[in-house]
Parts: sequence; structure tokens; C-alpha cells
Amino acid sequence: MEITFELGYALDTFYFLMSGALVMWMAAGFTMLEAGLVRAKNTTEILTKNVALYSISCIMFMICGYWIMYGGPDGLHAAVPFLSGILGDGVAAHEDTYAPAADFFFQVVFVATAMSIVSGAVAERMKLWAFLAFAVALTGFIYPMEGSWTWGGSSVFGLYTLGDLGFSDFAGSGIVHMAGAAAALAGVLILGARKGKYSADGKANAIPGANLPLATLGTFILWMGWFGFNGGSVLALASVESANSVAVVFLNTNMAAAGGLVAALILARIMFGKADLTMALNGALAGLVAITAEPSTPTVLQATLFGAAGGILVVFSIVGLDKLKIDDPVGAISVHGTVGLLGLLLVPITNDGSSFSGQIIGALTIFVWVFVTSLVVWLALKAVMGIRVSEEEEYEGVDISECGLEAYADFTTKS
Amino acid sequence: MEITFELGYALDTFYFLMSGALVMWMAAGFTMLEAGLVRAKNTTEILTKNVALYSISCIMFMICGYWIMYGGPDGLHAAVPFLSGILGDGVAAHEDTYAPAADFFFQVVFVATAMSIVSGAVAERMKLWAFLAFAVALTGFIYPMEGSWTWGGSSVFGLYTLGDLGFSDFAGSGIVHMAGAAAALAGVLILGARKGKYSADGKANAIPGANLPLATLGTFILWMGWFGFNGGSVLALASVESANSVAVVFLNTNMAAAGGLVAALILARIMFGKADLTMALNGALAGLVAITAEPSTPTVLQATLFGAAGGILVVFSIVGLDKLKIDDPVGAISVHGTVGLLGLLLVPITNDGSSFSGQIIGALTIFVWVFVTSLVVWLALKAVMGIRVSEEEEYEGVDISECGLEAYADFTTKS
Amino acid sequence: MEITFELGYALDTFYFLMSGALVMWMAAGFTMLEAGLVRAKNTTEILTKNVALYSISCIMFMICGYWIMYGGPDGLHAAVPFLSGILGDGVAAHEDTYAPAADFFFQVVFVATAMSIVSGAVAERMKLWAFLAFAVALTGFIYPMEGSWTWGGSSVFGLYTLGDLGFSDFAGSGIVHMAGAAAALAGVLILGARKGKYSADGKANAIPGANLPLATLGTFILWMGWFGFNGGSVLALASVESANSVAVVFLNTNMAAAGGLVAALILARIMFGKADLTMALNGALAGLVAITAEPSTPTVLQATLFGAAGGILVVFSIVGLDKLKIDDPVGAISVHGTVGLLGLLLVPITNDGSSFSGQIIGALTIFVWVFVTSLVVWLALKAVMGIRVSEEEEYEGVDISECGLEAYADFTTKS
Repeated sequence: MEITFELGYALDTFYFLMSGALVMWMAAGFTMLEAGLVRAKNTTEILTKNVALYSISCIMFMICGYWIMYGGPDGLHAAVPFLSGILGDGVAAHEDTYAPAADFFFQVVFVATAMSIVSGAVAERMKLWAFLAFAVALTGFIYPMEGSWTWGGSSVFGLYTLGDLGFSDFAGSGIVHMAGAAAALAGVLILGARKGKYSADGKANAIPGANLPLATLGTFILWMGWFGFNGGSVLALASVESANSVAVVFLNTNMAAAGGLVAALILARIMFGKADLTMALNGALAGLVAITAEPSTPTVLQATLFGAAGGILVVFSIVGLDKLKIDDPVGAISVHGTVGLLGLLLVPITNDGSSFSGQIIGALTIFVWVFVTSLVVWLALKAVMGIRVSEEEEYEGVDISECGLEAYADFTTKS
Repeated sequence: MEITFELGYALDTFYFLMSGALVMWMAAGFTMLEAGLVRAKNTTEILTKNVALYSISCIMFMICGYWIMYGGPDGLHAAVPFLSGILGDGVAAHEDTYAPAADFFFQVVFVATAMSIVSGAVAERMKLWAFLAFAVALTGFIYPMEGSWTWGGSSVFGLYTLGDLGFSDFAGSGIVHMAGAAAALAGVLILGARKGKYSADGKANAIPGANLPLATLGTFILWMGWFGFNGGSVLALASVESANSVAVVFLNTNMAAAGGLVAALILARIMFGKADLTMALNGALAGLVAITAEPSTPTVLQATLFGAAGGILVVFSIVGLDKLKIDDPVGAISVHGTVGLLGLLLVPITNDGSSFSGQIIGALTIFVWVFVTSLVVWLALKAVMGIRVSEEEEYEGVDISECGLEAYADFTTKS
Repeated sequence: MEITFELGYALDTFYFLMSGALVMWMAAGFTMLEAGLVRAKNTTEILTKNVALYSISCIMFMICGYWIMYGGPDGLHAAVPFLSGILGDGVAAHEDTYAPAADFFFQVVFVATAMSIVSGAVAERMKLWAFLAFAVALTGFIYPMEGSWTWGGSSVFGLYTLGDLGFSDFAGSGIVHMAGAAAALAGVLILGARKGKYSADGKANAIPGANLPLATLGTFILWMGWFGFNGGSVLALASVESANSVAVVFLNTNMAAAGGLVAALILARIMFGKADLTMALNGALAGLVAITAEPSTPTVLQATLFGAAGGILVVFSIVGLDKLKIDDPVGAISVHGTVGLLGLLLVPITNDGSSFSGQIIGALTIFVWVFVTSLVVWLALKAVMGIRVSEEEEYEGVDISECGLEAYADFTTKS
């Protein structure tokens, strides 16, 4: 092979691997974010859920998810050399421009992101093992199916092909984030709100998180990891054109987060009279979700404004869901679902290759599929093993009943 | 274009982007460091300040800072293609050797570093919104102006050009760190000390930080991020010479931090009789600041010793500022200001292209400009909106009054 | 030089530097893991130990460790150009394919990893300065000696050469992890168990860690950093073959951790009836240690299973050591020692270049050398300065006596 081909191959591989490592790091971000936003008595359990769901995602995607997502007629090429890898022959196909294992590594860490979204929304009252069983279904089957229709390029049950309809979702505002939120929404609806969250008169009571430095750290980790999430989704680096695109994506990702944070901070100040840190953090994350569907075509100014739109929308969405008594302790459904949809709808503004109708059909396809199948799985789990802890366990905190360990054993906590 | 040119372009772009991501990560480092060193009751507010200042820095640098810093006669080239990018045309100029967006991304994260330094020094008694207003001024105007005289290459008000006088500041011991400290010092002088910090007899009372694991984590994050801060400042990677330089910079950065930490730990043991963790952490940071003005020319042994000199100086500076009743809760003025000056003065020892006189004139230029303009802005803010919280709010903690949220809501804290 | 050579040199250098930065980040991981698993009253001291040991490791490796490890007849080439670097001439030798400073940077961060393992095992009762004195011996002499026999290629006291006997340890399951555990075991045996850990009737009492979010964060940091630890150990990236190998190593490292976590979580559920978070975290780390001796030849399925084997073994090892009254507060001896040995023994299954006999001889060589020399050093330190704090200091917590600072000064803790 040409030495320049080898260098390009090595550079693209390294770019995928570093991107993948950053996305893996997002698992830590979700974990810290969620651990900071729940109460002390439910912290060990959410930590356990998060480390376990990441691991389960990787294993399920290896066992079947990757094949479902990329193994169809359109994706055979990507899947087959890697399958050989599993069987013991890791050499790349001639036509590859980067290591197949790097592709799998980058893809597998995305799966966990979708599942991480669920864990926050159902926090503080779900049974641990029911949650992990759901993780098996989502990461091994539900997500890979919709992934095969979008990034995998397969047709939706032979009926229509999203790409042909003008659907475009660069790094997964819909495919990853809204999908995770749809699964979470199904779970929350079946699970119900935490005890004490809503008063008899319908008023939502604030249940403050126990550790805001952790939540802030988690947000920064996600922000950083998102450079890999979006930046890696250019899928190539080793040319002037690709490198320019990756650079624009990094920059726009950063600016959208900044825009989202500032917008949410100011809006919260206006609405609630205080500089609400949790709204600001969710604003940053909303900015990131909003730009994820298309970070490569907006100018930096547009990216900042798109992010700000996400930051504003997330505040209203969080307030709105509370009015509907949909109890989401960390705001995940708003950040990833409501704003994920916004992200999809913003794409046609700057990307000529997409259409509003395509985006809407795509969003509906993803939402309906993930929501309905998740509902079925949640209901099955409820019937088989139960999904909600007992009222007493919820009052005592799920850490003791589920994990047998307090998260902050040495500290005196309020009731 | 030649394929080898494309590969070099892509590699240099990737190197800038990864460096920039590491510098962005420093924002998390400052946040954790400061959140760990303040009291529990002021933690939410300092978290809010830090996430907001990072976002504001990015936005202000986009709006005007970058143009001020690099848009003058000497910097037009760097600025113009990016301006086109904002207007919708992100292609690189022919003479570029890496993506313009990557350059902006790398530069923008530096701005936030300067501002992060301020937030620690004014912690626990400043009004949140006054602080954020100052962030707008520093990151949009004050820092970019001095940046234009140094890295931008413009003359100082047409009077003299620092580069011609032998001023050299590789990655910003003076341009970023001492500048941030100068702004902080101006703020602290106007703001005054925290209640209870100094007794009537002039004795300084220790006010311990609430969460030393966070402070330690923050230090490690900064240490790691500094590889991008200094390593990226070589500004090129894709040749043997550049790669050697980047490698030496990574190594020297690491050794300087190690030297600073060990020196401060031993000195604190001698002076105070204990292994003072906060002094050790500040020693590591001081080592990093000391090497930042020139990490590419010292040998590893020199780098270690320069770092150790920083680690020793910072202990004396922290003790000295307390004697002067300049109350800096996290030691930021000592770490970044006193040691930033040391860093500038160490440059001529190993870098023949710089002179002591040039370093001194540069340091004075930066300090006078940033200190005076900051003083004006702080005084204006004091007149317009006030910069200090009320005595009662300070006693209760600024978290409730400014943010409406406790950082550690579930935990029982000592009054 | 050829431009393609320059590009390959730059890419390989960058790959080493990013890998090294990730390994440096592991120091933060160990620190958070250990700080989370000790009691609140011993947290400042373990933070101090960890930041100090990292710094000492870097300095000792610079002063003598690197020369001992790579400076012998077999390693002269690697050492000499760098020695010139210390003396002021950092240019690479002609035959180098990456910057010598990058090689040193990558090697030096490994040393700290070995030492980090010790700090957890001896936590909560060892004198700080005795520990740091041991760090000087281990990182400056004990580790480099065994490193010279393995990665350095020298013969063991002129008697036999491990490489010739079929010993292979890709990234250091034995050379780094089991070595650290051997030094830790020697220390723990001399030091004895914490007061109250074992009842008079031999029962082990659980002493829960104070901050499980920190421990979880530490595990994620280690997981991420391990991509650099193993991935960088391919020692080259800039060809199709090398890039494929690095990609496989990243992927296998991730899968082994996932396998280890799930296996330990399920086993703990079966054995203890609860989803034990600390066992799950140790399972992930055990999976990482198990794959470290050979992450490049297993298939992803094998890697997952090898990791799972590590996750199962670590649970039994932790339980077993408690039966032997070997008190290791964080499980470091089990994770890095027992599973490190497992890792070595798994190599011949997939790597034809190694033999079981070679692995066993190598493991014995490393263990005997490190254990015996560590025992001598610990005993000497015990005689000279004492290694255990007084019973009263242990009861009060070592933070006050050793560091003069509480880690969580504002919080009310349970006595």
C-alpha cells in the first residue's frame, strides 16, 4: 500500500479512537450529572445503574446490536470484516480507510448514551434489575432497529427509506437523544411520579439534588465528551475538507453549549428570580442536543443561536412536564427529547440536503418505534418482576434495599 | 492539493482540536478547584459563576474579542477567513496549514482560563451578576487588547511593539495567567476581605474549604488540561521539529507540576509542621504557571527546578498576601499572578530570543493595562449595581440569595 | 527527510503524547477511587499521598529510574538521546520514529500507576512520610529494575532473559499491576489491619467508603485512561497494521472492563443478595487488569470473557484476603495482584509468542523481586521512622495528625 494511504488510515483510525474515548467519557458525565441531581439516599443505586448500563450496552451491541444496525444489505460491508474480527481475523477489508475495530468502538459508545438518558428520568423509584433488563432490550434491539433505518440505511419495514425522504441527523439529536427520551417517557408514564413530588392540589414540589458540584462536573464531562460525539460523526479527518468540517463541528458544538447555558440562565433569572444552576446546566446540555443533528453547516453565530433556542425551550419543557405531572428528576426527557426534536427541525435551515417533511417523518418514525416498543417492554417487565420499589423502600431510599450500601456513609443527612 | 499537504493539514487541525478540548476541560478544573476550596454555603454560586463565565467568554470572543486580538494589521490573515466562516464560508485560505475554525476553537478556550482565575479570588462575597458583567468586559475587551499586543503582534497604542523588545510568552504565563490575576487583584482590593477572615489584631483566620477531594480533582484536571494549553501553543505538530517540540513541552509541563508540588509540600511541612494538601495543590499549579511562559527550551531538569521555584514562591506569596490582608480564598492571585511573573522572568534563562528587559516591559504592560482597566470596570459596576452582597447574605451564604439552591441540600453542615 | 517520514513521526509522537496524557489522568482516577473508598476522616491524607506519589514518581524516574530501566546494554539507544535532552540537546537520533521526549513521557506515567496501587492498600493507618519514602524506593529503583528485565530486555542478574523464555506482558498486568500489588502486600503484612476491621472471633467488619460517587468517578477515569495505557503500548500507530492493532486494543480494553463489571455485579448479587457497587467497580478494574497483559490478540468476545474471568476472580480474592485478615481497604491487592497474575496466565491462549512456563517464571521473578525488596524497604522504614500512626491518631483519623486539614470541613460526620 502507498505510504500516504497508510498515514491517512492511521490518522483516521486515531481520530475515531480518540472520539470514541471522549464519547465513552460521556458515560461518566451522565453518571455524575444524575448522581448529583438525586437525593443522597438514592445515589448508590443510580451510580450502579449507570456503570452497569454502560457495560450492558457494550456487550449487547457486540452480541447483536451492531449486526442489526449495520448488518443489513446496506451495511454488510461495515459489519462483515468486524465479524471476522470476532472470529479471529481482524484485518481490514481493502476498501476500508480506517480500522474496522475503531468503527465498532465509536459506534458502541453511542448506544450507552441513549440508555444513559433513561436512567436519569426513572431515578429514585425504579427497581434496579428491572432497569437493567430494559437496558438489554433497548441496547440490543430497540435502538439498533431504528439505527438500521437511519445511519444503517435500511428501509423501515420495507415501506420507506428515511434517507430518500430527506431525513438527516448528523450525530443523533433524534437517533440517539430523542430515542433515549422516548424510552424514558414510556418508563416514566408507567412508573408514575416519586412520592411527594406532586401535592394533592397538583403543585410540583422541588426535590433538590444532593450534590451540585457533581452535577456540574457531569455537565462539563458531557460538554467535553460531545466534541467526540459530534466531531467523530464527520467520520473522516484525513483531508483538508474533512479536517475543516471536524474543526467547524468542534467549534459549533462548543458555541451551542455556551449559547444554551447563557439563554437558560437568563430565562431562569427572569422566570424564577434566581440564577438557577440546574437550569443553566440543562441549558448547556440542551444547546448540545440542539446542535447535534447538524453541527457542520451552521455558522458559529447560527450555532450559538440554535443552542440558545435549545436553552430556552428546555426551561419551558421542564416547567411544562411538571404541569403534566410527568416526573423526571433530572430533566432528561426535556433535554434530550423536546430539544432533540428541535435539533431535527433546525437541520433544514442550514443543510440543503434535508427537508422539513423528512425530518418530521424521521422524528415520528423514531419516536413511535422507540416509545411503543419500550412501552411493551416496560409493561412486560412490570408484569414479570415489577418495576417500582415498595413505598417503604422509596421512603428509605433505594440504596439500602437495592445495593446494601449508602453512598455517603460517614455523613449525617437530613431526614 | 498534494496528499501530503492534506495529511499535514488534517494532523495539525486534529492536534489543535484535541489541545483545545483539553483547554476547555480546564474550565472544569477551575470549577472543581474553586468549589472544593470555598465553604459549602457558597458552592452553588461559584459553580454557577464558572459555568457562566466559560460560556460568556466563548460568546464575547466570538462577537468581538477575536477580532480585537487578531484582527489588526498584523493579524488580519488569521481573522478574515474565520470572519467569512461566521458569514457562511468556512473554507480555509490557501496559505493556511490547518483549519481556521480549529485556530478559533483553540484561542477561545484560553479566554475562559483568564477569567476563571478571577472567580476564585473574589469568591464567597461578590454578587453573581456583577461578576458576570465583569466577565463580559474582560473577555470581550480587556484581555483581547493585551492579547493583540502580544500574540496578536500589534503595537501598544502605536508606542512600542513587545515582540521587538524581546518579550516572549510561549503559552501565557503573563498574557493569560498574570492578566487574570491582575483583574482579580483589582476586584479583591475594591471588594475587601470576607467577614471574619482577618481578626481585629490583623491575624488571618483559616477558612477551610468544604470539599478537598473536589479541589484535588480540579488540580488533576488542570494538570491534564495544561498539556493542551502548553502543548497546543507550539502551534504546529506535523514535522519532526514541531513534533519534538510538542513532546518536550508535554514532558516539561508535567515535570514542572511535579517539581512545584513536591517543593510546596516540603516547604509547607517545614513552615507549618503538616503536609498541607492545599499548599501542595497550589504548588503543582504554580509549577505549571511557571513553565508556561517557556516550556519548549528548558531541559527536563530545568523544567522541574523552575516548577519547584514556582512551588516555593507560591507558598510565600499566599502567606504574604494574607499579611497584606488581601483575601484570596483559593490563592489564585499568588498562583497565577506572582508565579506568572516568575514564569516570564525565567524565560531568558533558556530562550535566547527573549530579554529580561523585554520580559519586564511586557509584564508591566500587561499588568498595568489589565489592572487599571479592571479597576475602572469594577468601580463602575460598584457604582451601578454594587459588587458585594449584604453582610447578612454573606453570613447565610450566597447560594441561597443568589442561586436559590443549596449545593449539598441533603447534608447537615456546620453552621 | 521525506515528508511522509515526517508525518509518520509527528503522528506517532502525537499518539504517544495523547496516550501518556490519558495514563497521567489515571493518577486522578486512583486518587478519586481511593478517596471515595476510605472514611471521611482519612480522606485528606490519601489525597495528599496520591498527588505526592505521582510527582515523586516523575522525579525519581527522571533522576534514575529511566536509566535503570532502559539504560542497560539493551536499552542504551532509548536512553541516550534522552539523556542528551536533559543536558540540553533534545534532537532525536536518526533512527527514531517518534520524539524521544514522548517516549519518556509515556513511560514515566506508568511508574506512578504502579505506586498508586500501593496507596490504596495501606490506607487509613500508614504514616504519610514513610509512605512517600517508600515511593522514592519503588519508583526510583525497585520498579525500574524489574522493568529492565522485562520491557528493558536485560537479563535477570545475568542468569536468564525473560523474553527468551517466552514471557510476554503487553502493557503490564504483571510488570505494573502485579508489581504494585506485591509492594502493597509487603506493606500490608508489616503494617497490619486497621483497628476494628477484624473482630476477635475473626469476622471481617465492613468499613464502608465515605463517598461512592467519587469512587465511581475514579473507576470511569481509570477506564478511560486505560485506553492510553493499553492503546499506547502498541508503541506505533502510523501504518495500517499498527493502526488496526491500536484499534483492537482500545476495543478489547473496553469490552474486558464491561465484562468484568457485569460478571462481578451478578456474582455479588448471588453471593451477597445485593447489587454491590464497590464489587462492580472492582470488577471493571479487574477486567481491565486481566486484559492488560495481552489486549491485541484476543477477539472481542474473548476479551469480554477474559474480563469477566477477572471480575469473578476479584470477588473471590477480596473475600479470600479478608479471611486471611489481610486488610486492603480498596481491594487493590486483589484487583491488581490476583487478577494481574490471571492476566499473565491468559496470554498464551491467544498469543503464540508466549508460553505458560515463561509467564509463570516471569510472574515469579516480578513477584519475588518486588515483594522481597519492598519488604526490606518497609522494614527499614519501620525501624527508622515508623510506618504506622498511633492508635489515637488512627481513631481520630489521619487527616488531622498528618495534614492538619479535614477533607470535608463543613460537614457533620458520624463519629
